[in-house]
Amino acid sequence: MATAAVNRQYRLAARPVGLPEEGDWDLTEEPVGEPGDGEVLVQVQYVSLDPAMRGWMSEGRSYIAPVAIGEVMRAGGVGRVLASRAGGVAEGDHVSGIFGVQEYAVAPADGVFKVDPQLASLPTYLGTLGMPGMTAYFGLLDIGAAHAGDTVVVSGAAGAVGQVVGQIARIKGCRAVGIAGGAAKCAYLVDELGFDAAVDYKSEDVRRALRGHCPDGIDVYFDNVGGEILDAALTGLARGARVVICGAISQYNATQAPSGPANYMSLLVNRARMEGFVVFDYATRYGEAAREMGGWLASGQLKTREDVAEGLENFPETLLRLFRGENIGKLVLKIA
Amino acid sequence: MATAAVNRQYRLAARPVGLPEEGDWDLTEEPVGEPGDGEVLVQVQYVSLDPAMRGWMSEGRSYIAPVAIGEVMRAGGVGRVLASRAGGVAEGDHVSGIFGVQEYAVAPADGVFKVDPQLASLPTYLGTLGMPGMTAYFGLLDIGAAHAGDTVVVSGAAGAVGQVVGQIARIKGCRAVGIAGGAAKCAYLVDELGFDAAVDYKSEDVRRALRGHCPDGIDVYFDNVGGEILDAALTGLARGARVVICGAISQYNATQAPSGPANYMSLLVNRARMEGFVVFDYATRYGEAAREMGGWLASGQLKTREDVAEGLENFPETLLRLFRGENIGKLVLKIA
Repeated sequence: MATAAVNRQYRLAARPVGLPEEGDWDLTEEPVGEPGDGEVLVQVQYVSLDPAMRGWMSEGRSYIAPVAIGEVMRAGGVGRVLASRAGGVAEGDHVSGIFGVQEYAVAPADGVFKVDPQLASLPTYLGTLGMPGMTAYFGLLDIGAAHAGDTVVVSGAAGAVGQVVGQIARIKGCRAVGIAGGAAKCAYLVDELGFDAAVDYKSEDVRRALRGHCPDGIDVYFDNVGGEILDAALTGLARGARVVICGAISQYNATQAPSGPANYMSLLVNRARMEGFVVFDYATRYGEAAREMGGWLASGQLKTREDVAEGLENFPETLLRLFRGENIGKLVLKIA
Repeated sequence: MATAAVNRQYRLAARPVGLPEEGDWDLTEEPVGEPGDGEVLVQVQYVSLDPAMRGWMSEGRSYIAPVAIGEVMRAGGVGRVLASRAGGVAEGDHVSGIFGVQEYAVAPADGVFKVDPQLASLPTYLGTLGMPGMTAYFGLLDIGAAHAGDTVVVSGAAGAVGQVVGQIARIKGCRAVGIAGGAAKCAYLVDELGFDAAVDYKSEDVRRALRGHCPDGIDVYFDNVGGEILDAALTGLARGARVVICGAISQYNATQAPSGPANYMSLLVNRARMEGFVVFDYATRYGEAAREMGGWLASGQLKTREDVAEGLENFPETLLRLFRGENIGKLVLKIA
């Protein structure tokens, strides 16, 4: 038991205006907790850094309540069970769950998922086999209804979700075009992950580039970024296209109301639809997706990459790397 | 035969910038044409005035080619067959079709629909039993997937499409809330057509009013107007809502790029979709809709109103009434 030890935590101190700053959190300490009936004590080994965290810091109606001021910052994580007072989870098991930005978490056992470090690395359970992978899978196949022969375009393509979207598209017989920032990310998409093409939004005219790479139009556009890139993609839709609204990282730190997709009337011209979703709604089907994606990972059809930073104390700065677009693959913070 | 007569026509002279002006058309004359094999000659009695006409005047990719400069302005119409060289259509029949803004039209017989002036007035075949009615029917029931118990909100509610959307919603067991400009239109919706509520966007805060009238959120939002009203409706969606993009009359004369629906991320929060459609795609099912709506008209469940202006020479000015929101019900021009 580690109850004599200290648990360092990042607690929300202020609601950010624009980009989060170090002062928006307090780094606090408290004794490591003890699990009650039905709970487990987890030593958090990796914290997941996700664009959605920015939304959780703000007030306002959303799909989940905001983190309260003074509360431990919400985050997914993966770690090792130090003590269990619940059936089905034992000391020494590895589990994932919403553990928060802290070194130790007490969590209800029915809110954690056992993971096998022999099958995949722990960070992969926060990425391709975690929420981002589930998001890619259900967003592309269920909301996007992608099928063989479709042209699939994904923005934020070198991120945790995007890299999986493009690869699943390829596996399912689609043409995959990624939009990412910078030559290194674009090379990664095409050379390592097998995307058919990549567009560097920092150096290319996205609208024109998409026209070139998608001569028959875009059947599925999977949007992680919003803003001008969404608008560019809307101009290139094929008839009957599906636009999957997964995120809008370009807008999350906006201090003024974003302008919205000016070209939305393309939905009418092209008899197209734009649909949002929240991956939590698919919880009962995570197993199905994990089995299929685990198989692809094992066979080498699906590749995964994590961008691992280290040290709990680097949490605020590491989170900013997401919004600067500096990560390739799933960004995680190793803390134990 | 009327071949010795003169056919007055409005031909497109210039592509408008902003609101169309009289000078964007030429009023020309030519001899009335003669039908060839498989064609009919129609004396146009009523010309349909539709918001979509503004789009047809502009260049650019859309669901239909623009009207060419020098071409007769495209318009739906209804009239009487003066001569037929096609089986199935006889002299004296009444027909609807895309006849253009002119007094006489030669049209292929397979592009016209016979209508029965005993069952409904001729203008009704341009409104509730014409394209606007078909648009309302398939947009609400097919794209919007409205079903009993839903709360349906429609903008442009006192227009040709909107008045039918709200009434079908009521017939199908939905709650119907209309958005329209001015007290007269709002009274018409509630007192004459049986809408549950109406919002006057000229005197009310639309967002707040919708919150009051739709305490459980909006299940189907049928949008005819775009702009700020679309944005207001997006903030009030219920989970799983469907936003039907039918038109954007507030934007058709914009000389700057419209700003787009800033609140589109409501689609994600509410797991909602926004979908566009073009009624022509439902051509094979018009009969089904016409039978059902004809029954409702006959039983008095569905009411219809047309706003009838007169005189071909008043076409440019009458069209502007649409964009000023002056019409209640379907706007038509009687020319014979």
